[in-house]
Amino acid sequence: EFAERLADAAASITLDLFRCHGQTVNKLGEGGFDPVTKADKDAEAIMRPLIEEAFPDDGINGEEFGIKTGTSDWVWYLDPIDGTRAFIAGLPSWTTLIGCVKNGSPKLGIIDQPYLNERYIGWTYGASFKTGGQTLPLYTDQNAALDEAILSTTDPFILTETEQVAFTRLRGEVRLTRYGLDAYAYARLAAGDLHLVAETGLQPHDIAALIPVVRGAGGIATDWTGHEATLGPELLCAANERVLKEALRVLEA
Amino acid sequence: EFAERLADAAASITLDLFRCHGQTVNKLGEGGFDPVTKADKDAEAIMRPLIEEAFPDDGINGEEFGIKTGTSDWVWYLDPIDGTRAFIAGLPSWTTLIGCVKNGSPKLGIIDQPYLNERYIGWTYGASFKTGGQTLPLYTDQNAALDEAILSTTDPFILTETEQVAFTRLRGEVRLTRYGLDAYAYARLAAGDLHLVAETGLQPHDIAALIPVVRGAGGIATDWTGHEATLGPELLCAANERVLKEALRVLEA
Repeated sequence: EFAERLADAAASITLDLFRCHGQTVNKLGEGGFDPVTKADKDAEAIMRPLIEEAFPDDGINGEEFGIKTGTSDWVWYLDPIDGTRAFIAGLPSWTTLIGCVKNGSPKLGIIDQPYLNERYIGWTYGASFKTGGQTLPLYTDQNAALDEAILSTTDPFILTETEQVAFTRLRGEVRLTRYGLDAYAYARLAAGDLHLVAETGLQPHDIAALIPVVRGAGGIATDWTGHEATLGPELLCAANERVLKEALRVLEA
Repeated sequence: EFAERLADAAASITLDLFRCHGQTVNKLGEGGFDPVTKADKDAEAIMRPLIEEAFPDDGINGEEFGIKTGTSDWVWYLDPIDGTRAFIAGLPSWTTLIGCVKNGSPKLGIIDQPYLNERYIGWTYGASFKTGGQTLPLYTDQNAALDEAILSTTDPFILTETEQVAFTRLRGEVRLTRYGLDAYAYARLAAGDLHLVAETGLQPHDIAALIPVVRGAGGIATDWTGHEATLGPELLCAANERVLKEALRVLEA
């Protein structure tokens, strides 16, 4: 319930600023483009004091304002806007990510999309989808094989050459591939629509919220070689064991 | 108003079937994957008789049920679900497209996204955005230059080798590139978020609705060499003259 209060607070900021232009700052200056918006900063700034007040001993790791070391076993991982590129392009696939991790193990995750009024919540023993006042259980697709699978990766052009070769092989084996979805892909994997998400270069504040949602819905989270997922940088999520095994074979071939 | 009645009718079908699994048929059988869903067919089937009753002399060109030749100067172009791949992946970037064309010239277009409750309407002298009971005018971004631009194409892997080379050059000059959006990219270009959409392999029933929305909002629609856009297969849409000129120079280089 407390994590949901955080998501509500973030939404009070992000929704007002979504599709308002002129809020973007480039973190990399002339050296590239890594956008951060007023919405990223303000949404994290509203969440951090709520945690500090309710759980003063817990650590906080946020994308915009860095790490506060705690004294308890718990750390809150915050990504106020995952998919800032989608956000500044006016596309409602950005999400707010809230992950709660105990001694390095993700225990609770929220993927929130307030413009769509969609909230995906996962914990150790289950996952649920809240929309329009309804709460429904989330289940991944337990039946699909690789040749029926829908695959997602955020940007095929940020992979290294070796990763690109492996990913291209995988793309050739699945039914359909989608791009540009960021964390929303994991939400729709949990909801049974997508079957595989393969990404690299992820940060702990990206991943901490995703693993509980995927696992709570019956999916599997590993790295690209099939070892149990850590907080980054690689993540491979599958709807079921069959898709996972077939995907790992193709990635390793 | 009549075109909006068509969009409402299509939405009554598509919304019920969105995120319902097991509706997909592969048009290409073993030869590839070109999905069509019950929602595609039923949504076109509900629109066609409405046109036949209201405008019996007009032609109809729909993605699923083909061409009805008319005797008037007008043809209705229908794509009940543009972005069927997004639809079956549970992603709300699919749209219903309704275009009204007089003697080959697109006069009225609707890009409708009922799950988001977003309707984009364009005509010769303007364009508007309807959402949540509000109607707002649509304007493209008249100021952005190419190095600030957000570019979109649906699938970078369906371009021919020559197109891919030109597109890769263009991708290198813009600020940000998005994939997988289908017609929704043109809607957000009209709304001022995106600045360039470059695609090939489009059909008349894809394009007829897009041109009035983009032009009505102050944008420009051409082919990849800068000639006035036709009903396909190439389409290059730009938010303003400056972005267009700079993009054409890069594409032709």
